[in-house]
Amino acid sequence: MTRQRVPAAVKRKLTEARVAHLATLDKRSPHIVPACFAFDGKNIYTAIDRKPKKQSVKELQRVRNIRANPQVGLMVDEYDEEWRKLWYVLVRGRAEIIDGPEEQQRAISLLRCKYSQYRMGLLPDGAQVIRIIPDRIAWWGKI
Amino acid sequence: MTRQRVPAAVKRKLTEARVAHLATLDKRSPHIVPACFAFDGKNIYTAIDRKPKKQSVKELQRVRNIRANPQVGLMVDEYDEEWRKLWYVLVRGRAEIIDGPEEQQRAISLLRCKYSQYRMGLLPDGAQVIRIIPDRIAWWGKI
Repeated sequence: MTRQRVPAAVKRKLTEARVAHLATLDKRSPHIVPACFAFDGKNIYTAIDRKPKKQSVKELQRVRNIRANPQVGLMVDEYDEEWRKLWYVLVRGRAEIIDGPEEQQRAISLLRCKYSQYRMGLLPDGAQVIRIIPDRIAWWGKI
Repeated sequence: MTRQRVPAAVKRKLTEARVAHLATLDKRSPHIVPACFAFDGKNIYTAIDRKPKKQSVKELQRVRNIRANPQVGLMVDEYDEEWRKLWYVLVRGRAEIIDGPEEQQRAISLLRCKYSQYRMGLLPDGAQVIRIIPDRIAWWGKI
């Protein structure tokens, strides 16, 4: 976890925002996906859920990329036509595929708690979970 | 431009979506920003506008990153709580800062045409413009 002091309002955005964009590295080129996520006040979790995917879980690009290079960027923001209301929170850090069943189960609970969609079967026990440990958090705009 | 056949519905998303997320490379770590953009049927344009920034234009991270490494990912999508409605369009390609005044002015006109906010002074003549030339376009979901 970053030792940076992060204001409560920024943490609230990380807790409440419904979608993030996760950038990973595919060799030397950036890859990016929208992702549902949960923040436990320290780390960010996102799971390989049962939304349809272009590829099977084993080959999922974000997972392959993270195994090869753990550096990621996670952007949380919300578009508004009133540009004075715009804001973002950018988390840069290291991502890992969780392999301890206890933390994995805790992350799955956190995600199910945040998303009712996940409580309806879209996030099975044992789903692969990615943990993002923030190195730096930056924020901008109307937070 | 990619020689890939891109369906009209995908082009429509690229034309009409109001915001994209642009991933660039900061040394070996991915950086990401939300960005307004315009698509001319071939390339994608995004400008350094007058929304407040964390840094001055010359030092803007996305510009420095692109000069050092032109590989970018641009994600266009829209979140919806009804997950069956989700979709995305991912453009991977090369970005350049435009230096010809003619293409720059054409891109600025395109952006002003799309965003009324830009017609009210937020996008001055002479604004820096980034051109993204798609190498590959991928799409998923309810397009």
